[in-house]
Amino acid sequence: MHPRLTSTPAAATVFTMVLTQGPVSRVEIAKRSGLSSAAVTKAARPFIEAGYLEELEATERTAPGAGRPASPLSIRPEREFFCGVKITHEELIGVVTDLRAQPLVSAHRPLATTSAEGVVSALAELVAELLAADPAYGERCHALGLAVSGDVDKAHGVVRYSPFLQWHQVPLARLAAEATGLIVTIDNDVKSLTVAEQWFGDGVGTSSFALVTVGVGIGCGLVVNDRVVAGAHGVAGEIGHIPVGRDEPECHCGGRGCVEAIAGTAPLLAAARAASGDASLTVEAAIDAAHAGDPAVREVFARAGHAIGLAMAAMANLFGPERIIVTGDVPGLASYGLFEEQLNRSFAAQAFGAAADCRLLLRPRSFEQWARGAAAVAIQQHFTLEGAPLPGLRSAGSEATGATREGSGSQRPRRLTK
Amino acid sequence: MHPRLTSTPAAATVFTMVLTQGPVSRVEIAKRSGLSSAAVTKAARPFIEAGYLEELEATERTAPGAGRPASPLSIRPEREFFCGVKITHEELIGVVTDLRAQPLVSAHRPLATTSAEGVVSALAELVAELLAADPAYGERCHALGLAVSGDVDKAHGVVRYSPFLQWHQVPLARLAAEATGLIVTIDNDVKSLTVAEQWFGDGVGTSSFALVTVGVGIGCGLVVNDRVVAGAHGVAGEIGHIPVGRDEPECHCGGRGCVEAIAGTAPLLAAARAASGDASLTVEAAIDAAHAGDPAVREVFARAGHAIGLAMAAMANLFGPERIIVTGDVPGLASYGLFEEQLNRSFAAQAFGAAADCRLLLRPRSFEQWARGAAAVAIQQHFTLEGAPLPGLRSAGSEATGATREGSGSQRPRRLTK
Ligand SMILES: [Zn+2]
Ligand SMILES: [Zn+2]
Repeated sequence: MHPRLTSTPAAATVFTMVLTQGPVSRVEIAKRSGLSSAAVTKAARPFIEAGYLEELEATERTAPGAGRPASPLSIRPEREFFCGVKITHEELIGVVTDLRAQPLVSAHRPLATTSAEGVVSALAELVAELLAADPAYGERCHALGLAVSGDVDKAHGVVRYSPFLQWHQVPLARLAAEATGLIVTIDNDVKSLTVAEQWFGDGVGTSSFALVTVGVGIGCGLVVNDRVVAGAHGVAGEIGHIPVGRDEPECHCGGRGCVEAIAGTAPLLAAARAASGDASLTVEAAIDAAHAGDPAVREVFARAGHAIGLAMAAMANLFGPERIIVTGDVPGLASYGLFEEQLNRSFAAQAFGAAADCRLLLRPRSFEQWARGAAAVAIQQHFTLEGAPLPGLRSAGSEATGATREGSGSQRPRRLTK
Repeated sequence: MHPRLTSTPAAATVFTMVLTQGPVSRVEIAKRSGLSSAAVTKAARPFIEAGYLEELEATERTAPGAGRPASPLSIRPEREFFCGVKITHEELIGVVTDLRAQPLVSAHRPLATTSAEGVVSALAELVAELLAADPAYGERCHALGLAVSGDVDKAHGVVRYSPFLQWHQVPLARLAAEATGLIVTIDNDVKSLTVAEQWFGDGVGTSSFALVTVGVGIGCGLVVNDRVVAGAHGVAGEIGHIPVGRDEPECHCGGRGCVEAIAGTAPLLAAARAASGDASLTVEAAIDAAHAGDPAVREVFARAGHAIGLAMAAMANLFGPERIIVTGDVPGLASYGLFEEQLNRSFAAQAFGAAADCRLLLRPRSFEQWARGAAAVAIQQHFTLEGAPLPGLRSAGSEATGATREGSGSQRPRRLTK
């Protein structure tokens, strides 16, 4: 990609509209964006010439003499590839995606160390393995996105603090760029997943939604007025530390009654062990016991669902998202069905008035989806002027989202095994 | 005002920038807005010709031959006046303001009825009285803003539901326009106050802040990325219904543990009565007793402060505002000092990481300030294209805000007595 292709707001607007809402005609782009037809045509031309966009056959017949039929513009998804890697303290999960963040191939790599040097070295190997999977990747993949939990300074490419990795002020973007030769973008993992939903998933077609992730921690990404909320002090989306609890022990954050201190994996397991009287119960066994009907263990999951539902209601009361996407990692994923019912009930009971009309969407996501989120951030960074909201989605309506929705993680990437 | 003056985005941008950040030079406007110098000059001209803007004497001397010195553009605040009225179930509070929402004159009118007809009829009398206070008002006031608590559909001018007034689907804007002959804008009262802070108060110079109002209810207005959060389903800022409580009785919203069910005036008074053993204690007497040192009553106020502090922390954890302005009506205003300390402590304890860096600003506001909020909404409606964010404030920095800050309610309007 030549960065200058998106050097103007009009270019970024036109390209991202086709990318996230296409195929779409120039007339429709002009209507949704407020740009003139001439400006749309001018902005699209370099993308067509560089092979990023193509003109489809006209689909609509117009009356004779009414001018040319509208030829929709469409993305050529394999014109460029993107690499995305989710970094956990145990392993790296990587994908190569097309321009629409559709994963094409995936690979994992266990981490022997969480030192920055060790992680970056493993990362370079993983990326090399991914790009070697197809000659086209090596030729047409120039950008890598990295997703890390914790406090990430995206603008400067620095992981300020990651508790799981025990990282402080790690200049990850620079280190990874040196090790891989790619253009590197880093972001918080939940924000990355939110960007993937906003551009290519269940967030398409709405200007305000939330993504809630259930797992070791309880996280949240917020999109308000078409933009991911970053927080003036770098903190946002900390739904896990809304104090909805009663007599719970202190949370690791120093607060009390935090959702995460009730529904996070560790306190959930501790409560299940106490309830079952089995001090060596595993998470998997707790989930099995609950599914098998153990009332005490079921109650533990219901309590977690209650806490999450209350926190989601608090969030909906404050900023009124149109939709809330609930997702999880393992074991959050496996246990979700156990607290879903109570979550929905507690949300409905505490949501204020019409805030209860907010749609809750359950979307199980694998770790590969988190890697895809990292790729989505790299894509977004590549094609927009930093900080600009996604254009025209509000007026687009949901009928425009079918094509992208279909691509939102429904296909499984080819998995590389060694 | 000729509405066509702000018929283009550039015109709205230039005028609102001078209005909220002026005096400011054309060069500086161009820099902050991204418009060309020629576009700024072209956009400003009709406002100068119509008497809304004026060129001040050049303040900066430039080197000989370096071109004309920069002549800052300034608003002419008395070019047009605005009327704002806050409607409560007991009385109407009205102000006439200048272009900067500076109240010039105020008047109250008790309500004998809360029927829509009765309120509108009293409103027409109050507006007539206000506009008669100065011949210039009658000549140059064309717009009226109304602030109402509850669910207000600003776009259609309809009060969907106001619990205190017992209104359902009242087309207030139309009724008020017919009765007064003015252009009428209506909005929720907390949102109106938020707009006043955003354009003319403590929200100037930041792209994200919150306003929390303490009184009969606990309300909140949010500005994220320069825009007031409206909520996809019409609900937002309902901080009063975040469930932070322990064993409190059910809230009027149907939820449990709501902040408002602890710290709202009625539950606060009930708790003070229970604590003091005096079933006929008034709010004023409870405040006096607490100030005099009664430990049981003081504890009631501290509990309210704790609940509000936790809810504010939940809000800061979710969307990370740069500042939170805390304000109140009577008696919230008088009791604020009683829970301020506990509020600050509980906020700090529950705020996640850097979210605790959020500045808390205590700003006592009188009911007249709510009326001023209504006028601010009318001003905003008058001079912007609907929904557009306030331009360029993020880059403006606080040094640009001195002039407007000074006008943010520090002067008292002349009060009309009959
Ligand atoms: Zn916590
Ligand atoms: Zn409530």
